[in-house]
Amino acid sequence: MSFNIGKLSVTIAGESHAKALSVIIEGIPAGVKIDSFKLRDFMKRRVPGQNKYSTSRNETDIPIILSGIKNGFSTGAPISAMIENSDTRSRDYGERLDVPRPAHADYPASVKFGEYFDFCGGGQFSGRLTAAMCFAGGIAKQLLSEKGIEVCGHIASIHGIRDESYSSEISDVSGKEFPVISDAAGELMKAEIDKARMSGDSVGGCIECAVTGLSPGIGDALYGGLDGELAKAVFAVPAVKGVEFGAGFDVCGMLGSENNDAYYTDGTDIKTVTNNHGGILGGMSSGMPILLRVAMKPTPSIAMKQNSVSLSKHKNVELEIIGRHDPCVVPRAVPCIESMCALVILGKIL
Amino acid sequence: MSFNIGKLSVTIAGESHAKALSVIIEGIPAGVKIDSFKLRDFMKRRVPGQNKYSTSRNETDIPIILSGIKNGFSTGAPISAMIENSDTRSRDYGERLDVPRPAHADYPASVKFGEYFDFCGGGQFSGRLTAAMCFAGGIAKQLLSEKGIEVCGHIASIHGIRDESYSSEISDVSGKEFPVISDAAGELMKAEIDKARMSGDSVGGCIECAVTGLSPGIGDALYGGLDGELAKAVFAVPAVKGVEFGAGFDVCGMLGSENNDAYYTDGTDIKTVTNNHGGILGGMSSGMPILLRVAMKPTPSIAMKQNSVSLSKHKNVELEIIGRHDPCVVPRAVPCIESMCALVILGKIL
Amino acid sequence: MSFNIGKLSVTIAGESHAKALSVIIEGIPAGVKIDSFKLRDFMKRRVPGQNKYSTSRNETDIPIILSGIKNGFSTGAPISAMIENSDTRSRDYGERLDVPRPAHADYPASVKFGEYFDFCGGGQFSGRLTAAMCFAGGIAKQLLSEKGIEVCGHIASIHGIRDESYSSEISDVSGKEFPVISDAAGELMKAEIDKARMSGDSVGGCIECAVTGLSPGIGDALYGGLDGELAKAVFAVPAVKGVEFGAGFDVCGMLGSENNDAYYTDGTDIKTVTNNHGGILGGMSSGMPILLRVAMKPTPSIAMKQNSVSLSKHKNVELEIIGRHDPCVVPRAVPCIESMCALVILGKIL
Amino acid sequence: MSFNIGKLSVTIAGESHAKALSVIIEGIPAGVKIDSFKLRDFMKRRVPGQNKYSTSRNETDIPIILSGIKNGFSTGAPISAMIENSDTRSRDYGERLDVPRPAHADYPASVKFGEYFDFCGGGQFSGRLTAAMCFAGGIAKQLLSEKGIEVCGHIASIHGIRDESYSSEISDVSGKEFPVISDAAGELMKAEIDKARMSGDSVGGCIECAVTGLSPGIGDALYGGLDGELAKAVFAVPAVKGVEFGAGFDVCGMLGSENNDAYYTDGTDIKTVTNNHGGILGGMSSGMPILLRVAMKPTPSIAMKQNSVSLSKHKNVELEIIGRHDPCVVPRAVPCIESMCALVILGKIL
Repeated sequence: MSFNIGKLSVTIAGESHAKALSVIIEGIPAGVKIDSFKLRDFMKRRVPGQNKYSTSRNETDIPIILSGIKNGFSTGAPISAMIENSDTRSRDYGERLDVPRPAHADYPASVKFGEYFDFCGGGQFSGRLTAAMCFAGGIAKQLLSEKGIEVCGHIASIHGIRDESYSSEISDVSGKEFPVISDAAGELMKAEIDKARMSGDSVGGCIECAVTGLSPGIGDALYGGLDGELAKAVFAVPAVKGVEFGAGFDVCGMLGSENNDAYYTDGTDIKTVTNNHGGILGGMSSGMPILLRVAMKPTPSIAMKQNSVSLSKHKNVELEIIGRHDPCVVPRAVPCIESMCALVILGKIL
Repeated sequence: MSFNIGKLSVTIAGESHAKALSVIIEGIPAGVKIDSFKLRDFMKRRVPGQNKYSTSRNETDIPIILSGIKNGFSTGAPISAMIENSDTRSRDYGERLDVPRPAHADYPASVKFGEYFDFCGGGQFSGRLTAAMCFAGGIAKQLLSEKGIEVCGHIASIHGIRDESYSSEISDVSGKEFPVISDAAGELMKAEIDKARMSGDSVGGCIECAVTGLSPGIGDALYGGLDGELAKAVFAVPAVKGVEFGAGFDVCGMLGSENNDAYYTDGTDIKTVTNNHGGILGGMSSGMPILLRVAMKPTPSIAMKQNSVSLSKHKNVELEIIGRHDPCVVPRAVPCIESMCALVILGKIL
Repeated sequence: MSFNIGKLSVTIAGESHAKALSVIIEGIPAGVKIDSFKLRDFMKRRVPGQNKYSTSRNETDIPIILSGIKNGFSTGAPISAMIENSDTRSRDYGERLDVPRPAHADYPASVKFGEYFDFCGGGQFSGRLTAAMCFAGGIAKQLLSEKGIEVCGHIASIHGIRDESYSSEISDVSGKEFPVISDAAGELMKAEIDKARMSGDSVGGCIECAVTGLSPGIGDALYGGLDGELAKAVFAVPAVKGVEFGAGFDVCGMLGSENNDAYYTDGTDIKTVTNNHGGILGGMSSGMPILLRVAMKPTPSIAMKQNSVSLSKHKNVELEIIGRHDPCVVPRAVPCIESMCALVILGKIL
Repeated sequence: MSFNIGKLSVTIAGESHAKALSVIIEGIPAGVKIDSFKLRDFMKRRVPGQNKYSTSRNETDIPIILSGIKNGFSTGAPISAMIENSDTRSRDYGERLDVPRPAHADYPASVKFGEYFDFCGGGQFSGRLTAAMCFAGGIAKQLLSEKGIEVCGHIASIHGIRDESYSSEISDVSGKEFPVISDAAGELMKAEIDKARMSGDSVGGCIECAVTGLSPGIGDALYGGLDGELAKAVFAVPAVKGVEFGAGFDVCGMLGSENNDAYYTDGTDIKTVTNNHGGILGGMSSGMPILLRVAMKPTPSIAMKQNSVSLSKHKNVELEIIGRHDPCVVPRAVPCIESMCALVILGKIL
């Protein structure tokens, strides 16, 4: 993965069962304080094996800084780090990829890469690589925070159970083990996850993410739009199937007179009364909070028998997946979505 | 706008009221037949002033080829064209941008560019620039078609009135003046547009687009995913507020056992029984049709009075917009969405 | 040609005998004053047909601005222009490319593009395209000049006759019809060009270019070095065969104690006593003038008979070139080299 | 360093005294055999501490593969590796950068990065980073070799002592400890290096590099030229001050009739009688060997006293450099130049 926006580049390498993930960040100026404890705390939000709602694969995800940071400050050189893969169980995956798992990257990857594709754990398509994303995103968030820009997300819904929305008020719930605004809704969501886990199934959900403190006019016209960049970025997180800003798909049923956000001034700033535009107009930030929602599909790995095909025998077969999997990736994906959004914003303002 | 995917680059310049739009396409191989009649027919699908459902601004949108095409074939040099702006009425816009129009790019553009921003007709943020997009997209579609890849779209809904969906069957309705599968639904949509037009309002809608004939394995992991590239590309079309693939936002309420698309083989090909994944898995094409839906907001320019702010006087004012505007941009946006999708796919396979 | 450095992009399209050249410049901020008279004066320095030292092809090279500039100021939108090809004589080139002209792009272009290559006048490989380069470069020079950065070049040598060097003092000779520091040397050079012209031959030469007023620390390590960027950029000008900075190839015969430029301070600035490093250290500007020299080969088109090959008959043949050609491209190439250097510097500081 | 040509990307991070160098290579297809012994042999050609002609810093430079290679074959995922810095002696460099070493990156880097620049050993500007370049280049050479393309270099001159030239015949001397064609010339060169070393001085030299087996038509017009890409790439190697192709700077004194390389055919292939053009015409390969020469300055670090400036005190001081340094970097730079050339060629043909 090679992410380039403005002066910022993030390059990520790794495979689920390779020795380590690598990440190189270019474009961070010299002299930026990087708080490694804060960074680990952030990365911990996506670490697996913390509770029964996630996979039991045990990874500590402690990044080893190889260059670019000295005595807690960036040196101006590219920042490089590795994150070791410690708990790989390739035996769960057999000798070769024969029966592609539904809704996984297995089948197209086998066409693209042939027999050399390291399919164990999904190879380079594994959600495991989001650990490296969060390393980069965690640093981006620290830089943004210094400039008064905050990126925060929460679980907007799981299997139909909805949290409150940021459209009324944006509250940072990142400190919570289960990042929802309404803990009552959270309990219902957990129950849904539990139910899915016990029946060998999985559930999807929605993440809402906000960016506050961004001044107006950031972004460019047409293909250089901030919304397009954010959209592309969130699709880098595995399992994302849709993205919308502000009123999003609801605009399809709205009148212009309902959707248009009227401007007003409080004497100093210019704001909009409502935020149907989700903080972006003409590809540029409007000064209002950026609001986006991301649809995440249910974890493809389920314990139930599924229909698939034997690639070697060209015939229909039944598949039973063995291994350790999250019944729902949404909670762990919240910091990943925040990371990708933070990287886009940082790239646009550096 | 500078669009780069693989060897393909498309650079677009222009402003609503400037002398002309420009477009340069790099990466088209030599010897490709380019049918200029077919290209004009395609571009005509977005031309304004054709009927009462669109703005009365009168533009013929005939592109003038400046280089790269000789005797109907590409020469291997960059293809360059201009499209003149003939019917500009800057007098509708006054001396300077003082009261930003709600839901337009005016306000953030005025912060970004200051007084030098050519705000007439929205300047570089105008939907007018999609004429150049369609020039490039129309050429891309011709190249793809030669390779058996078709990109086609239809109006999926307008102000809540829904067309049939591509998920059952993909039919090319591009020949129709009003591109819907169900003409009955189309009539209801037209009535909605008419109603909005007569009340000085506007309506939003949804476009569905399909890509068929693409072999599996096109696309890359994470930030290089085909879904991310398509998402970014469609946001280049003004008024887009959301994008989703396959089951899209519905996955948020689904179980893995519902959402996973089982594989089967008919002896030759490997297919999925359902297409909730919308033809993309792990950022790669699966061989199934790519299905995406795009949410488009109601035209921001409405005749009704709106609340806004005088930038020079820093106080709240009422705004009445004069000018010629579409009551609904969705019908004319269908070829634009097709264009951006075609460019992404072409870039990925060139 | 797609040139991207930092926020600056320049895209050029055209062919020697196509309708027009196109150029799109992205990244110029809004509100920059662009003096069109100054720009034409600069572009005139490379216009052909001005005297007996250049080709008799008659082109006025007046750029037509299509967008991005209004009332003499940049609007913040991409700047787009076209330059018409008025005096094309395709009849000089025959029906198809059969016998490639030595030292021209003909042969590799015929392999790359096949029969669809528009070879007339060299097609997209023609020196004609430097007119578009100079449009972009001329604008870049105006922006740089506002910031106190000047880019100026002169003919360093023609066919062995040397001008004085910038290493002693940098003087802007751009106002001269024949841009040399020593007019006496210039007369000798002209005599060499004349001699070549009369014998149906051509001569090569060297251009020296300086950039003054650039503060230290511009540029990046390794592949992002300012020297590498400048080197790549000057090779965009046809006929360039080498580039060197400061002492250049002479360093191969030097000791470290001879080559190292000692630092000193005059109380305010830090400078070097000598400038063997040519203003760049570790890929970054040092604050001293950037000095580079570019080797330009003799015009490939000569009137004398040459040995070549018939591509259709696969046999050796003699070739006699008809057409209008410069006996020496060096004088007209000076503004082209300045342009490419100016674009790199502007890209690095925007 | 982020190198992108076509589908190939190489990202390098590291600093002379950081924990490790990192390198990520994207774009290598799946199923490519990578011979790790051959790779180490290649990398060994630039390893320091092997003989008295190079620095005594002791690094084994054994790369640790982190991902992308499994059982000796590429998996299609990005290839990632680290090379540890084991023998760093930061104590040689003191507390802070106060007196910049002449001809090093110290001064501009201190302006660019301020006090946070990790100046020990030159930080990110150190020749140390070429170890990572050679890792990537060594892999590129293996891929090219499979396609019949060889990249080989030799020392063309050191301190005025010249080796034979590739222009007569290209011979691979990479197996030699001291890579010259004429061993007699090599002995004289070694004597020059020795002399410089004993007097606490250093010497410069020239490297010639050839690429054979490349078919015609690779490369693009103007800014996309193969010569420009190669030129930029070799400047990524620290100490390069010039690059020329074929006859190079000699063209400045030549007539067209002397410089033009006549075509002929031997019945099957089309070749040129001479190779003044160095295998590149119009930015494209001609099918003849690519020949380039690179000027490398004498090692800046010399034992003799030099004049410099104290940055903290703003006054002129004398500087004596302590540390371990090569009296001549040219021999160790040969594989670095080969690497950068190989990466460009691979990027252009992938």
